[in-house]
Formats: sequence, C-alpha cells, structure tokens
Amino acid sequence: MKNKNSNIIVMAQMNPISGDIEYNKNKAIETIKKANEINADLIIFPELFLIGYPIGDILTRYSFIKDQLKKALDEIKNITTNTAVLIGFAEENKEKFGKPFYNSVAFIQNKEIKKIIRKTLLANYAEHNDYRYFEPAKINKENRIINLNGIKYGIAICEDSWNDFDFFEKNLYATDPIKEIAPFVDVIICPSSSCTRVKKEQLKHNMMSNISKKYKIKYIYVNQVGANDELVYDGYSRMYNDKGELCAMAKGFEEDFYMLNLNSKNIINNLPKGLELTLNSQKEFSLDYLPDLERTYKAIVLAIKEYFKKNNFKRAVLGLSGGLDSSICAVVLADALGKENIFGIFMPSKLTSSDSENDAKKLAQNLGINFMEIPIKDMHEAISNKFNEIFKKAQNSSFNRYTKSFTQDNIQARSRAMILWGVANEFESTVPIATSDKSELYMGYATINGDMSGGYAPISDIVKTKLFALARWMNENRLQKNAIPETIINKPPQAELAIDPKTGKTLLAEDALMPYEFLDEVIWRIENLNQSINNMMKSKFLYEKKNILDEKTKFQWLNKFFKKLNTALYKWYITPPGPVIDSRSINKIEFKQPIISNINYSK
Amino acid sequence: MKNKNSNIIVMAQMNPISGDIEYNKNKAIETIKKANEINADLIIFPELFLIGYPIGDILTRYSFIKDQLKKALDEIKNITTNTAVLIGFAEENKEKFGKPFYNSVAFIQNKEIKKIIRKTLLANYAEHNDYRYFEPAKINKENRIINLNGIKYGIAICEDSWNDFDFFEKNLYATDPIKEIAPFVDVIICPSSSCTRVKKEQLKHNMMSNISKKYKIKYIYVNQVGANDELVYDGYSRMYNDKGELCAMAKGFEEDFYMLNLNSKNIINNLPKGLELTLNSQKEFSLDYLPDLERTYKAIVLAIKEYFKKNNFKRAVLGLSGGLDSSICAVVLADALGKENIFGIFMPSKLTSSDSENDAKKLAQNLGINFMEIPIKDMHEAISNKFNEIFKKAQNSSFNRYTKSFTQDNIQARSRAMILWGVANEFESTVPIATSDKSELYMGYATINGDMSGGYAPISDIVKTKLFALARWMNENRLQKNAIPETIINKPPQAELAIDPKTGKTLLAEDALMPYEFLDEVIWRIENLNQSINNMMKSKFLYEKKNILDEKTKFQWLNKFFKKLNTALYKWYITPPGPVIDSRSINKIEFKQPIISNINYSK
Repeated sequence: MKNKNSNIIVMAQMNPISGDIEYNKNKAIETIKKANEINADLIIFPELFLIGYPIGDILTRYSFIKDQLKKALDEIKNITTNTAVLIGFAEENKEKFGKPFYNSVAFIQNKEIKKIIRKTLLANYAEHNDYRYFEPAKINKENRIINLNGIKYGIAICEDSWNDFDFFEKNLYATDPIKEIAPFVDVIICPSSSCTRVKKEQLKHNMMSNISKKYKIKYIYVNQVGANDELVYDGYSRMYNDKGELCAMAKGFEEDFYMLNLNSKNIINNLPKGLELTLNSQKEFSLDYLPDLERTYKAIVLAIKEYFKKNNFKRAVLGLSGGLDSSICAVVLADALGKENIFGIFMPSKLTSSDSENDAKKLAQNLGINFMEIPIKDMHEAISNKFNEIFKKAQNSSFNRYTKSFTQDNIQARSRAMILWGVANEFESTVPIATSDKSELYMGYATINGDMSGGYAPISDIVKTKLFALARWMNENRLQKNAIPETIINKPPQAELAIDPKTGKTLLAEDALMPYEFLDEVIWRIENLNQSINNMMKSKFLYEKKNILDEKTKFQWLNKFFKKLNTALYKWYITPPGPVIDSRSINKIEFKQPIISNINYSK
Repeated sequence: MKNKNSNIIVMAQMNPISGDIEYNKNKAIETIKKANEINADLIIFPELFLIGYPIGDILTRYSFIKDQLKKALDEIKNITTNTAVLIGFAEENKEKFGKPFYNSVAFIQNKEIKKIIRKTLLANYAEHNDYRYFEPAKINKENRIINLNGIKYGIAICEDSWNDFDFFEKNLYATDPIKEIAPFVDVIICPSSSCTRVKKEQLKHNMMSNISKKYKIKYIYVNQVGANDELVYDGYSRMYNDKGELCAMAKGFEEDFYMLNLNSKNIINNLPKGLELTLNSQKEFSLDYLPDLERTYKAIVLAIKEYFKKNNFKRAVLGLSGGLDSSICAVVLADALGKENIFGIFMPSKLTSSDSENDAKKLAQNLGINFMEIPIKDMHEAISNKFNEIFKKAQNSSFNRYTKSFTQDNIQARSRAMILWGVANEFESTVPIATSDKSELYMGYATINGDMSGGYAPISDIVKTKLFALARWMNENRLQKNAIPETIINKPPQAELAIDPKTGKTLLAEDALMPYEFLDEVIWRIENLNQSINNMMKSKFLYEKKNILDEKTKFQWLNKFFKKLNTALYKWYITPPGPVIDSRSINKIEFKQPIISNINYSK
C-alpha cells in the first residue's frame, strides 16, 4: 500500500542518445516500471529526454522522426499507472505560425497524457541553439501547474528557471516564468539538460538556492547525465528545501535512480568537492586550479567513455612524446577505456632526446598500456628527399619559396599522425587521438594533419598551466599514485621539432610563443572579460606580479598573441571534437569566428 | 542644382569584411561622398554593413568593438550632407532586459542621426543565427517610416520582409512588419545580407514582386555582395515598381554603385540567366542542372577569390588525378586566382593509368597552369614497409587486426596530401585544395588527411551528377572552350586507390557505392523533402524510370547510404570550408548532427 505521507519522487537522472528514440524510450519504460513498483508519486526525466540533447539539426532535417516521437510517447503512456511521469520531448507545432517544434514536457498518469507543458525561454547562446527549432511558448500559469496527491507542482523547463530579475544583473528575457508560477505552487520542478562548465556549478547552486529561498518553495532539478561529442552532462540532480538549503543530491557523472522524500529534513552543506568555489575562484586569473580539477578530470574521462561507446569504438592509439600533453591524454584514456585498450607509440626523430624516450616508456609502464617504439627518421628522410625534388622543380614557377619555413617540422608531426591513422585503419574500432591543448590551439601552435589531427581531442579546452596542475592532481588522487613521472611535469614544454638557432638546442615552446603563464591569462581575459589589447595593457597580469615585464615586451606579446590567433582560426575550424571544460571555449559547438574576419583587437 | 523630380537613390551594393570596422567605414565614407557629389536623395547600404555579415560570435566575444562601431558611425555622420544615408550596424542594447545588441539601420542626414530602425524578425535557421546576439525589436510603425523630400519610405531589414501571411504556407513568426508599415508608405526599403542558394533566387523574386503588387508600392532591395568563408552574397540589388514588376537591377557577383530613378518606367522581364527557373526546376529531382549552372560557377569563383583575398593568400596547389573533381577545381581556381597562381601536381601510384596521366597533363596545358609530375610509388612503398613493421608488432596486443582494411588506399591519398601541404608550407601565400565533392562527402568516400584535406574545398556542396553538367557547361561557356578534355568527362569516376577483386581492374566509385544518379537523388530527397527510407521506397526515383531496379536492391542501396552517412559525420566535422551552393547542405555553417547521434532513418 502506498504511504501518502512519504511522497516519494524519483529523479530519473538518465543518459539518452541523441536521436535514438527507440533506445531512449526503452530506457524510459524500464525506469518508469521501477518507479511504478515502488509506488512513487512521480518520476521526472531530464529535458527533451526522448530525443536526447543536444539534437543538432536532427529534428528539422529528419522531420520524419516526429512520428517516431509520437509513437514512443504513446508506448510510454500505456505503461503508466498511478505513478505520474514527467518526460521531455520535442512536440510538433501544428499551427500556421512559429517554429516547427515546442520544447515540451508531457505529464502522464494512468495511461493518459494529462497535460503538456511548453518551454518559454529558449537558450540561444554558447552551446545552445533552441530558437532554431523551438517556438517560445506563451506563459499560461494554469498550464504549468500540476496537482498531484494534494501537492501543487510548477514546471519550469531548464532556461525557464534562469531569468530571475534580482539574481541576475542583466536578463536575456523580459519575462520570468518562475515569478509567474512560484506564488501558486509548493514545489518547482526543473527538468534540464545543463552541461558542466567552469564557474557554472556554483552559479547554478546559488541561482537555485535563491529561488527556493525567495519564494519559500521546494525546488527540484533533474539533469541529464552523459556526454555527446563535446558536451558533458554531470547529473547532480537535486532538491532544495524552502529555505534555499540543498537537501538531496543524486550522483555526479553517472546515471542515478534517485528516490526523493519531499519532506526530507536532511541538509547538505556543501556541493561535492570540485564544484564548490569554482565561481569565486574565477573572479580573477589564478594558477590555483584546484577547485576545478576533480570536475575537469571526471568530465574528460566521461566524455571519452561516451564518445567511444556511443560511436562503437573501443580502443585508442596515440603518440607518446614524453611530454605533458600526450602523457595526460594517455592517463585519461586509460581511465576511460581500460589500459589494455590503449596503444602508446613513441616515434623518435633525429631531434628526440633520450630523456623523452625514458619518460614515454616509464609512463606507459606505469599505466600498463600497450607500448611501441617506432623511429621515424627513415620516414622523415624519405619524405624530405621527395620534398626537395618537388621544391626544386616548383621554384621555377611563379611560386615564391620562403627563406624560412616550417616544412621540416611539419613532416615529423605528419609522419607521426600518418602512423596513428594507419593503426586506426588497420585495427578494429580504434581511434587516433589529437593531443593538442587549448593554449597551443589558440596560437595555432599545432600541425594540420599532424598532432592536431585525430578522432577525438581530449584536452583541447584545457590551457597549459592547468594541465600542469591536472597532472599533479592525477598523480595524487588517482588510485595509482604518480603514474606521470615527475620529469615529465618538470621539464619545459617543447615539440622537439626544430632547433633554436639562439641556443643550438631544441626550441622551447615558451621561446617560440611567450610564457604560458602570460599566454593563459590572455586567453582567460578574452573568454571571461572580453578584453582588448588596450584593456590588457592597463591590467596587471599575474605574471607581472612575479616577473619584471616592460610595457614594450608586454605589448609585443599581446600583438603576437592576436596575430597568431587570427591565423589559427582555420585550425579551429578543422579541430576534432573534444570536451568543453572552461566557461568559454573555442570549440565549434559554441564559438564561431569567420576565418576571413579581420578584427582590430587593440582598441 | 538638385532636380527634385528625379529622386536619385543609390543602392550601395558593397562588399564588407566581417569584423573589419575600419575597412567597412572607409568604404562607406568613400561611397557616401560619391552620392553626395551627385546630390542623391538617399544612399542605402546592405544590412549590418559596418560590422559585416556573417559575424559569427565576434560581437559577443570581442564586445569592445561596440565602441569601434560607435566611433565609425560618428565619423560617417560627420560627412553626411543633404543626401541621406541608411546604413546597417550592430546597436548596443543598453536596457536591463534582452540580448546585447539590436540589428539596426541608422538614418543619417546633415550630420545628424535622425532615426534608428531596429529589426524585428530574427532569422535563426540554416546559416542564420541572429537570435544569438540580437534582441527582436517591437514593431513601432512610426519609427520605421522616414520622410524624405516628400516621399515616405518604410524600412524592413532583410527577414522583416520575409513573413507575408498569404505568400508563405507556413510562417515562422506571428507578426508581419511589412503589413504594419506598407499601407502608410510609398516605398519599402529592404537592406539585406542574403546569400545565394539554389531555389532561393526565384523565391526571392516572387516574394518581393508579391509585396509590391499586393500593397501597390515600390520595393527596393539592397543586398550585400562578396563571400565570407562559406557564404556567397550575389548582390543583384533591385527595385520593383508598384505593379510587382522588376524595373532596375544592379550587377551580380560584384560591387555596384547603382543610381536608381524612383520614377523609372523601365521594366526588366527576366531575372538574369541562371537565376530564372531555379524554383520550378527543383520541384522534383532532375539531371537538368542547366538553370543553375551559371550561378553555381559564379558563386564558386567568387567564393575562392574572396577567401584568398580576405585571408591574404594568392596561390593554390592541388593534386590533378585526371578525374572530374580535381579537373573542375583546377578550372575554377584558375578563373578565380589566375592561371599563373595555380600549381597542379600529378602524383601517380602503381595503380594510376596512363590515360589519367594524359588527361591531367592535357588539362594543365589547356589551362596554362603550372604542372608537375611526382610519382608517389617510392613514398607509398616506404610508408607501407614502415606500417608492416608496426602492424606486426601491434598484432601481439589486444588490438584486433582487420582482415580487410583501407590502409593501403589511404597511404596513397595521404602521401598526396602531405606533398600538397608541404608545397603550401614551403611557398608563400599558397593554399592546398581539398577536391572532395558532395556525393562523396555524404558517403564518407574521402580520406581524412588525404583528398578531403586542404585549406578550401571548392566543390564540397556539389553532387557528382551536377559536376558532370558543370564541366560541360564550363567547356561551352568559358571564353576558352573545351578546357576539360572530353575523356575526363566521359570516364566513370574512380579513385584509382584499389583493385576491384571482381573485375581485376581499379575499383569504380559506383561499384563501391551505388549509381551516382541514384545516390544524388537520395541526397536531394533528404535535403529538400526530409524523407525517410520508407518514404523513398514508396517514391519512384529518376533512376528507376530509366533502369530496372528491384525493391530489394533499392532497399539495400538506401540502407547502405544511411549507414555510410552515419560514419561520415565525423568527416563532415573536419571538412575544410567551401561555398554553400545548394538549397540545403552538410556544410558546418548550416548543418550540425552530433557525431554520436543514432537515428532510425527507416520509419
């Protein structure tokens, strides 16, 4: 018998596959049956669960799947009992006016769709593109409220909850659905598909806590979990009591069938480690990445796991250089896919040092991944000879030969990528990995069809100074301690592709570019403060607090940065997918700058 | 002295650079001065001219340029005389609510900004993403009307003109700005940035003609010209009289300072050749591409020209295989950049026929481009030996070796790309060209870091059957006749990368895939009719009208098509930029399908 006083509500924090309605429906049915069995009042799924999120242009290009959606919803309807279901789907807009769909939630009980609630505020910034297919619904207060066993619930789908006029200094929309419904209900339910990013976690917590406190109301947030190409959904579905206190929270980074007692007296004082502080700690640039490292690690590992599983891949092959980037990639790949499914190939050229060899070997040993050493000197030489033959011939044309070029550097990087793609072509379900990091991508310091080429780019949204911190964090916090040799973390980054004429030794990245500490702060200032060169000249960089930096050099570095950025735009266009980690990124899913654009970054 | 009866209006059909406010402002000032000199009533610039279009995320990431915009507008203001100016810019939204900018037009006269008109309907489909940064303006009738020398003009910015309730069967928006202002004005002015696409030209003509006829009103359309990465703006600014008749039209595919006499009695009966018929001719799939070939050719040539000029590139290098795709690329490159700036490299492998060699040579001779022959047998062999060494070692791991793989095919394609990138790295301002076509990209029938790699992909939105038609059209319509040898057009497409075990000869593309005539119709049905496999099974294909095709084979082909499409999604993600030509495409600027998505294409 049902105990009416307990009011069990299930947060169905599930992982859908974009476009796979059959899979999502089956998962929903299975989960609803569990909720039926325990006689829950209500089970809540994430936003758009039946179609999955993000959906890209699936809805409009393959518009025939709207019938698949309708059929799936019908099947779900038919297994409902007294346990009510709230499930997100894309609802066809049949009117003459408006976008082709609504972003809707069906309220289903006892084999009947009792209400359909539609989203009003359509996120169309960063990774979101909702106004592309969805018609914004008018706010009809009555239509958003459901009565269930004596409790009134108000539904606010994701963005509908993110427009409080007091909480935000600026509002993207002139209406606030929460304001319209909160005074008339006991509980707000917010089905969401909200991806995890730096700064967002604390903001989300503050925002939700604020609503529940302001309106003296319970607030339930049910989030998607999983990852799709670039976006990672961390779950952490939760409830706030009517004082703004967090009183229940589902798991992070995995599915959860969380049974919520609406009358819980429990109080959770802190967000999980790694989520706390990420807002405050990012008010100015800092090398203290600690508050965000656990989240970063978990997000990358989940992103890889999901990308491989959902694409039916199993194994990864990557070049191990003995440097930081490839070492970190090897660790997260091993953790995501299992060490037996990783192949690390050390591919020395004539410029590669024995230190690099030892470091690469040791890392592979520590991780227990497959390892192979393949010198590329012969390949480099053969290609280089071929090139000389070609270039001599071409010189007789109207084509002007550079006196200095990156051709030789690139042959090495491209030979390595060719080997990795060869392994991927020859062995089952194997993906080559692009090891470029965010600092390098910003500078275009990566070779096309070389190190920036691959099927997935795990660290493409992590700057170099954060990678150092991440390496140390992993060495301390993974079950296996110190997998990454100290020597790898301690040596200055370099590609070992060219000799520095000034030193006679291999060229260090910081000499070719500028100090990473400075470079990473420039990136941070662009993404978080939208600053121009002029603004940055007037700001004191962290680097300047520790080092002497004259105005002229600072100005040169800034100009160099933006000049390099402009020639890097093409590289961003063809960068493989990788997880979005930072509050802002250059990932295609959320940032687009025309390659031909010409911006005056100074003023 | 000004002749008040003439009412000269200048359509300033100009080519801006996205984000380059200084350049756009200088161009505007120069053009306005010309209009001042002839004492025109009014000069009209395209939508968002001062910032350029498309703008990507420039406005939000580099928000400091809003000050540059304000300053530029001020400078323009200060050179205005009695000749009024209508110029598009991004206007900052300073209110607490709404998106950060408006898509606005400033009405300036005698050193005074007299009115600012804001756009209401924000295109957010296909290549458009306006709702990302722009707040939709409320329709304030008075604010959209300007009085000038006794004539009332109503302003409707681009999309504001595209929502007639009678003309369109379905409307994206519930309001129609034209309906609100047309009854109160003599002339509608529509500043636009409207890119050219199949089917759109006739639709645009019909739509504009409909408005002027319906409201018995003159209609002036001022369009951007030029190209930005993937989008080509064809210009063709124009005026319709109050009977819906086209009475003036600026040039296509180039800048124009067009002086319009508002009282012109002229009537132009037809759209330019190549634009007419494109709507009707596309109601069903047809191999008669003729109505669209001139536009297609001009769009590609302009796209290449612009991409190179705006990026400071001068020269292109491409592999000539003796096949159709590379031959067409060579022709359009030569026409865009000058024959002396093109290098064609013929790179035979052991599978390359002497026919291919002769064809490639002859094409290069005909065009007068630089030509070189570089056998890749030695490179292929060296890499292949290296690979065998690696694969043997790797076999001892948990990695399962395929019994059949594309590794050998890919070595050839990648060796060629390596050579092209090598030339691009070694010679000044040189870009390697990706020659993949749309049919092949849909099927993923292209090698990563091989033939699909390059700095620009000129024919990536043209299907194979259309390329045959385009080759013939160019042979007839270019000044130099028959540049492409007949033998190239007549031979069946093949990559010459592998031997077909059934025939013992090199594998033909149609044997590896399916007949191009069928394949291209599948693409057409997806993009234009959004059909599922089930829909297509019920439809009669053009191929079926000419050939016997049993249900089983048809079903197999369709399933093969969608299976290949699904594995091609990653390749689309890293395809270089190329001009959008068709009504719908798989170009990143307008289509996005998550790589991990899993769609049931059958039902």
